Amino acid sequence: MRTTAENAELALLLEVAGTPKPGNVDRHREYPDLRFEHFLAGAVGTREGLRMAADGEPLGAAFLRAVSGMSEQSGGNTQFGAVLLQVPLVAAAGAAEHELTPGGATAAVEATTVADAADFYRAFEAVEVAVPDPPEGLEPLDVRRGSEAIPALESRELSLADVIERSTSVDGIAREWVGGFERTFDAAAAIEGGDGPVTDRAAAVFLDLLADEVDTFVAKRHDRETAERVRERAAAALEGSVDPETLAEEFVAEGINPGTTADIIAGGLFVALERGLDV
Amino acid sequence: MRTTAENAELALLLEVAGTPKPGNVDRHREYPDLRFEHFLAGAVGTREGLRMAADGEPLGAAFLRAVSGMSEQSGGNTQFGAVLLQVPLVAAAGAAEHELTPGGATAAVEATTVADAADFYRAFEAVEVAVPDPPEGLEPLDVRRGSEAIPALESRELSLADVIERSTSVDGIAREWVGGFERTFDAAAAIEGGDGPVTDRAAAVFLDLLADEVDTFVAKRHDRETAERVRERAAAALEGSVDPETLAEEFVAEGINPGTTADIIAGGLFVALERGLDV
Repeated sequence: MRTTAENAELALLLEVAGTPKPGNVDRHREYPDLRFEHFLAGAVGTREGLRMAADGEPLGAAFLRAVSGMSEQSGGNTQFGAVLLQVPLVAAAGAAEHELTPGGATAAVEATTVADAADFYRAFEAVEVAVPDPPEGLEPLDVRRGSEAIPALESRELSLADVIERSTSVDGIAREWVGGFERTFDAAAAIEGGDGPVTDRAAAVFLDLLADEVDTFVAKRHDRETAERVRERAAAALEGSVDPETLAEEFVAEGINPGTTADIIAGGLFVALERGLDV
Repeated sequence: MRTTAENAELALLLEVAGTPKPGNVDRHREYPDLRFEHFLAGAVGTREGLRMAADGEPLGAAFLRAVSGMSEQSGGNTQFGAVLLQVPLVAAAGAAEHELTPGGATAAVEATTVADAADFYRAFEAVEVAVPDPPEGLEPLDVRRGSEAIPALESRELSLADVIERSTSVDGIAREWVGGFERTFDAAAAIEGGDGPVTDRAAAVFLDLLADEVDTFVAKRHDRETAERVRERAAAALEGSVDPETLAEEFVAEGINPGTTADIIAGGLFVALERGLDV
């Protein structure tokens, strides 16, 4: 039997291998500076941090370790969001007192501390992550300040859950953290309910999710209108009026990379593997 | 910095991701029952055994653990030969008294014991591996007997190196073990000397190796004539008279899977990563 950390790493690998996954790096498509091999190396590097989360070490330290390991490749940010989504799920799966359920994962979120928040900020020093400007008045808490923001966190006594909660309006991973990981567990059920190769199922559920809600990574990197157009094109692909392969070429050409949706698939794959999904 | 075990796992992942790699499962081609995802899960499962080898635990126990972990997927044998090639290299890289050189890896081979040989035989119980019938008189040592053959090993006082040496006439991995890992180190140098994505370099060196010597896995699964024809076709692809993509389709259609050549690439990628190859 694979360990919890092994399942989390495997989920990252299966996610990137699914194709077509319009706009994202997958087994058949890559960008010149962000390649399939960077995701392989990134996934390998996350394992030790994921093991820490499974073994009950603090979530922030586990996340920082996973992101540091992930960054040991030259493609930059490969799985920051996916790992952020995974760590409370991994902690819940690993803990004797929780279970891998929405309630168990939420309990792991709620147990986070100011020290976890500090390590989360430190993780932004390991890799460049696309984030929007903070709302007016919250500049001292800008994650891009990295560890320089830690005194501001400490004086306000913000836990990691508090920090993440402030991003729910702009970040789909933050919404999962505060909303019981609803889309993640739905994705897991959809993957479990499919048939055929796991990577094909993951790609199919990716398109479902992309058609269902705007991808917040696209909204951040481009704008809300682009993200809405991406959602509509994915819906058209689902209905059969656009070939998903054509859509994949189109999005890659435009540099549209729906990363948050991919992160949720990685979380869903992890949940499904923990619940016994055969590969 | 990645650990030695992380580099060994990453080498397995980079190897299977390289394309076109005529006849083998790669990023663009798979068999219905032996899929890309099986290789991802297999690689993840090897890590703990590879860690044992890097930490100086007995080579046989490390190999058995790696193969057991590798087998936790439904595709069957994915990386048995690659891991067999890797363990002495990993042991040499991890040991304070050796170095990752032909001499260091040979010292790790020569240090193997009868207990290592027993664990090697146990590994054949974890997964079905293609092996030829043993020579006349050596039936008691048939690896397919698994742990039942251990008393015969013990009474003859055969170390793992002794066992492997008996296969050099039919097995390219065995030849590496007894011959200072010559093709593996040559592959590492060729990968290091290339440019562009690492997976493309690995695929190019795969074709070079396949054109250079018959693949012993093809010779075992089919016959010597088929293996020689495969070598000639690979040489034609190298010279440009056959498109490697066409060759890949042709070999997959015939079920010709040059696994030993792939194993040597996985070994070469590991050596290159340990020597600082950037991904």
